[in-house]
Amino acid sequence: MTVPERNVSATIDPVKLDRLAEVAVRVGLQLKAGQDLLVTAPTVALPLVRKIAEHAYRAGAGLVTPILSDEAVTLSRYRLAPDDSFDRAAGWLYEGMSKAFAGNTARLAIVGDNPMLLAGEDPAKVSRASKANSIAYQPALERIVNFDINWNIIAYPSLSWAKQVFPDDEEDVAVAKLADAIFAASRVDNDEPIAAWNKHNATLRSRTEWLNGQRFGALHYSGPGTDLEIGLADGHEWQGGASTAKNGITCNANIPTEEVFTTPHARRVNGHVVSTKPLSYQGSLIDGIAVRFEEGRIIEAKATRGEEVLSKVLDTDEGARRLWCRIPRRFRKAGCCSSTPCSTRTPPATSRLANAIRNASSTAPI
Amino acid sequence: MTVPERNVSATIDPVKLDRLAEVAVRVGLQLKAGQDLLVTAPTVALPLVRKIAEHAYRAGAGLVTPILSDEAVTLSRYRLAPDDSFDRAAGWLYEGMSKAFAGNTARLAIVGDNPMLLAGEDPAKVSRASKANSIAYQPALERIVNFDINWNIIAYPSLSWAKQVFPDDEEDVAVAKLADAIFAASRVDNDEPIAAWNKHNATLRSRTEWLNGQRFGALHYSGPGTDLEIGLADGHEWQGGASTAKNGITCNANIPTEEVFTTPHARRVNGHVVSTKPLSYQGSLIDGIAVRFEEGRIIEAKATRGEEVLSKVLDTDEGARRLWCRIPRRFRKAGCCSSTPCSTRTPPATSRLANAIRNASSTAPI
Repeated sequence: MTVPERNVSATIDPVKLDRLAEVAVRVGLQLKAGQDLLVTAPTVALPLVRKIAEHAYRAGAGLVTPILSDEAVTLSRYRLAPDDSFDRAAGWLYEGMSKAFAGNTARLAIVGDNPMLLAGEDPAKVSRASKANSIAYQPALERIVNFDINWNIIAYPSLSWAKQVFPDDEEDVAVAKLADAIFAASRVDNDEPIAAWNKHNATLRSRTEWLNGQRFGALHYSGPGTDLEIGLADGHEWQGGASTAKNGITCNANIPTEEVFTTPHARRVNGHVVSTKPLSYQGSLIDGIAVRFEEGRIIEAKATRGEEVLSKVLDTDEGARRLWCRIPRRFRKAGCCSSTPCSTRTPPATSRLANAIRNASSTAPI
Repeated sequence: MTVPERNVSATIDPVKLDRLAEVAVRVGLQLKAGQDLLVTAPTVALPLVRKIAEHAYRAGAGLVTPILSDEAVTLSRYRLAPDDSFDRAAGWLYEGMSKAFAGNTARLAIVGDNPMLLAGEDPAKVSRASKANSIAYQPALERIVNFDINWNIIAYPSLSWAKQVFPDDEEDVAVAKLADAIFAASRVDNDEPIAAWNKHNATLRSRTEWLNGQRFGALHYSGPGTDLEIGLADGHEWQGGASTAKNGITCNANIPTEEVFTTPHARRVNGHVVSTKPLSYQGSLIDGIAVRFEEGRIIEAKATRGEEVLSKVLDTDEGARRLWCRIPRRFRKAGCCSSTPCSTRTPPATSRLANAIRNASSTAPI
């Protein structure tokens, strides 16, 4: 029982990989001297973890602690563990992470797991394990979504992921292609990636400023299979690119990122929408998603692949059928835009739907 | 900055490696159905971690959580981190481990780090980092040395370790030789390792019973460079092999183990003793150790190699200059055999000197 992950990291451009690590530390995290860093990653991403540690220590990091998950260990669980194990989570570890964040430890997540790892496993077990993890991780996650600390997510081109994206290529070629795609999107395919990110952040800022000036009341999305109106919350604010965390550090939480985002109105979302890219959710691939919203809530959902998993995801809790939203601070107590508790600040990369954009999943316990 | 660790795990007999994992779970831990397991290991030992996870889940484990450390990340710290980082430790992680043990999670440690990893680094930094880790790890360690839970230490034949032990062999041959030595000592070089361990435990038990019947007052060690008398504590008890933890599980904490051990008298140790094997301590090698005891305390210490590290180890705290001892429960309050606080139960494998026997170090944060 081993994961067919060969060492093909030799085909990944070492200079660009090093730049990606530097960008993660200097742009993504803006790690401050003396600040500790917690890195979560799959074991296949170890070459990038090592580069991150180097750049973090060069930037004056106090202590870098990697928490590595392993796909083969995860698979063993699904294939051999007793049934009642799937409602368990390593609460002690998540609590520890929460404590670390409370002590101003920065957080870096490397994604690169096999998007299909759990595709052959029992969806009920996948859903139960995911729910147990979500509950255990909640206190730590809140510190992330509330932006208490600077954090960053980057991607590593693993073989299993590359094979999904470039199925017709030789393994080495597929990895090199995925690596190039990640490097280009992460703006490390040039000699001055820090300057490129400064320019990109300025562009995103000018877009959010323009959007904020327009005070749009709703957005209308149309396309093949899509006709969706999303009402915007009163007093909504557009954001994108660099943000300042509550610890005072301005960071780029998502690398890559092209998005600008704002707060939908919880009840004013109506129509239907289809996905044009597959969603990798906790090691299961969901494709051909078609959902219908009524008054902010998904009331119909289909998928050409992974429909059972999608259906279980939507049944996780009441919020799972709604667009995530950010409630501006002045409205928070009034609860004006949502009848369910939701995060006060949720950039899309932390939402359930964000994986569709990022095309990577976390099968890790974290 | 990478560690020259190639993938030579292919030369390790997969059948025996699988048996080692089985023995660790079924003999070392005696893992109970529903019990969670925390595994610490260096990343190079991943093949054994994966086998452990399989056998643990087969045995009904609730959740297996590996915490992996990486030598390259550790080296980055020593070479690049700011000076004041060396007094830091990942307290949140150690606290989490302590909480896991409090919840009856079993503990497995895989050793196999490069015994020379930190040999070229500043001994003062090594000592400071080690001290900070010791302090942060103390609450978790106490649950181990007090035998609150079942725990086990096993060894993995890493290339860097093999090269130290078999310096004249090709790398592949050295790893295969070290693997064979570990497999033989761990009694997995035969088709019925579980039966072999039952027999071995019976042999060790008959030895401890004989020794307990003798009520020796002192032991005299003599040899080239050694003339040492160790007085035994009144009411001392000999132990060895399988022991029953406070959670009721009888486990073999050390694999391999040949030792029987008891409690020295804290003040009745006099004479001199030399080491015949090198001591690998936190990635530094100390060799040719010669120490002199007076009234239970080391008052003179030399080493032909690593003397500075040895000297710093001995200065860690007052207990560092004394033989570790187990105070029988009935004497604990009276503190009759030691003027310093010491663990109530300390099998040698958890003592500072035990690495000399095991010939492996932990350079991991754990």
